[in-house]
Amino acid sequence: MTKKVVLVVEYNGSAYKGWQAQKFGVPSVQENLEKALAVIANHPVKVICAGRTDSGVHASAQVVHFETNVERSERAWTLGVNTYLPVDISVVAARHVSENFHARFSALSRRYRYVIYQSELRPAILAKGVTWTYKKLDAEVMKEAAKVFVGTHDFSSFRAIGCQANTPIRTILHFDVQQLGQYIVLDVRANAFLHHMIRNFAGVLMSIGAGEKTVSWSKEVLDAKDRCKGGITAPSDGLYFVDAQYPDIFNIPVCKLGPHFLPYVEEPSYDLSS
Amino acid sequence: MTKKVVLVVEYNGSAYKGWQAQKFGVPSVQENLEKALAVIANHPVKVICAGRTDSGVHASAQVVHFETNVERSERAWTLGVNTYLPVDISVVAARHVSENFHARFSALSRRYRYVIYQSELRPAILAKGVTWTYKKLDAEVMKEAAKVFVGTHDFSSFRAIGCQANTPIRTILHFDVQQLGQYIVLDVRANAFLHHMIRNFAGVLMSIGAGEKTVSWSKEVLDAKDRCKGGITAPSDGLYFVDAQYPDIFNIPVCKLGPHFLPYVEEPSYDLSS
Repeated sequence: MTKKVVLVVEYNGSAYKGWQAQKFGVPSVQENLEKALAVIANHPVKVICAGRTDSGVHASAQVVHFETNVERSERAWTLGVNTYLPVDISVVAARHVSENFHARFSALSRRYRYVIYQSELRPAILAKGVTWTYKKLDAEVMKEAAKVFVGTHDFSSFRAIGCQANTPIRTILHFDVQQLGQYIVLDVRANAFLHHMIRNFAGVLMSIGAGEKTVSWSKEVLDAKDRCKGGITAPSDGLYFVDAQYPDIFNIPVCKLGPHFLPYVEEPSYDLSS
Repeated sequence: MTKKVVLVVEYNGSAYKGWQAQKFGVPSVQENLEKALAVIANHPVKVICAGRTDSGVHASAQVVHFETNVERSERAWTLGVNTYLPVDISVVAARHVSENFHARFSALSRRYRYVIYQSELRPAILAKGVTWTYKKLDAEVMKEAAKVFVGTHDFSSFRAIGCQANTPIRTILHFDVQQLGQYIVLDVRANAFLHHMIRNFAGVLMSIGAGEKTVSWSKEVLDAKDRCKGGITAPSDGLYFVDAQYPDIFNIPVCKLGPHFLPYVEEPSYDLSS
């Protein structure tokens, strides 16, 4: 009988051309994970994730499901699988789940954090794990500017040219900007995201935060519904997939808000009913 | 006329076979730094550092000096040099310095932090930036066990077989163990260190912290003056060179205690006169 398993997966995306398995020789997180799972399952495994991340993008808690016809403990799907994964990919939770669950279609929302590091000179230790800027950013101004993104809008101005979504309409449920020492963290939850959407938000907010544009520019860009009126696409280095939310009935493992190198902060509240 | 310049350098050591330039084709921090400096100086440059780090060891604030006969601004030695360095090496401060200064021989002490990350399943994002353990460690017990290391001792039990130092006698000025969420950080300052000394301290303290050995074992190992009586050499992943201290007269740039991904903590006090 076929069984379903849900995993929470952490990865450092620096070495990968994104989540999705591609043609031979292009490193992807999916391909590595499927190979490791196949060793434990003793049959080929196909995984489905909550949100496919781009080249260089990281995840502290990507949610994944797969089907298997073998009986294995949850420890086998974590500890066992991890022994076959590269050091920059790790399964951090596993649980047997209802056959109705689907990591992509059951998700109510996805959440990303975009980590900016402000210092006059560039960092080296976390070079590929943060987006560096030498410009002084005003997080309060950025937070104010981000408010216009909350709600249901046509986000054409924040959508990559190659985006394959059927519609540019998305619902942002929560958009916070937090200053944590030298880090400025954008924290965004939406029903779903367009291609490059958060990096395009980051491009606009960083220009506003640096005082190159006024706080009202975010609304101008949103209203224009035109990618050419937007800002630059900020780098992938600071982008982390940190959570996907599902109906409680599925009992999906809940992980601490990542990435874990950030100082602990109070969980911001958001309201899915809004 | 020859001038001296002091630099503070941050690097992620994961991709390097240590600080020291070696034979052709072996990647080192020193070689990359000397090449980048030579471009700005327009002549070959030799650098001397405060503490040569091993393969895979990182630095948030390595101190380096070199001589040059050209006149360049301090910004040229930071921003300019950084454009010729790989992303995992960065000059974070530069200053003209007295010709009497020597990064190695003028140093009064060196300071390292060893970052342990405790979680049931291994981390991926900071895989090469922390030493992971699935064992629950008691930081208070480790702190107690580390007290015997403070002072001037024969550290033969903590010295790698291949260590080339003339004497196993070293003076530990400060040894703290701090719990910061899931991180346990060893913070050690000494006049100088033997080869693998901190990683050997970490091996002993992690066994004690996990309850595999009693708190008095650190003294037994120290008293044995025999490497074979010691613990394992803990991995290089979590080891960071974070500071070197010099006489005030040299006016060396002071950097915030790294690595910067750790939560901010109160600077522990230590007394060089002890």
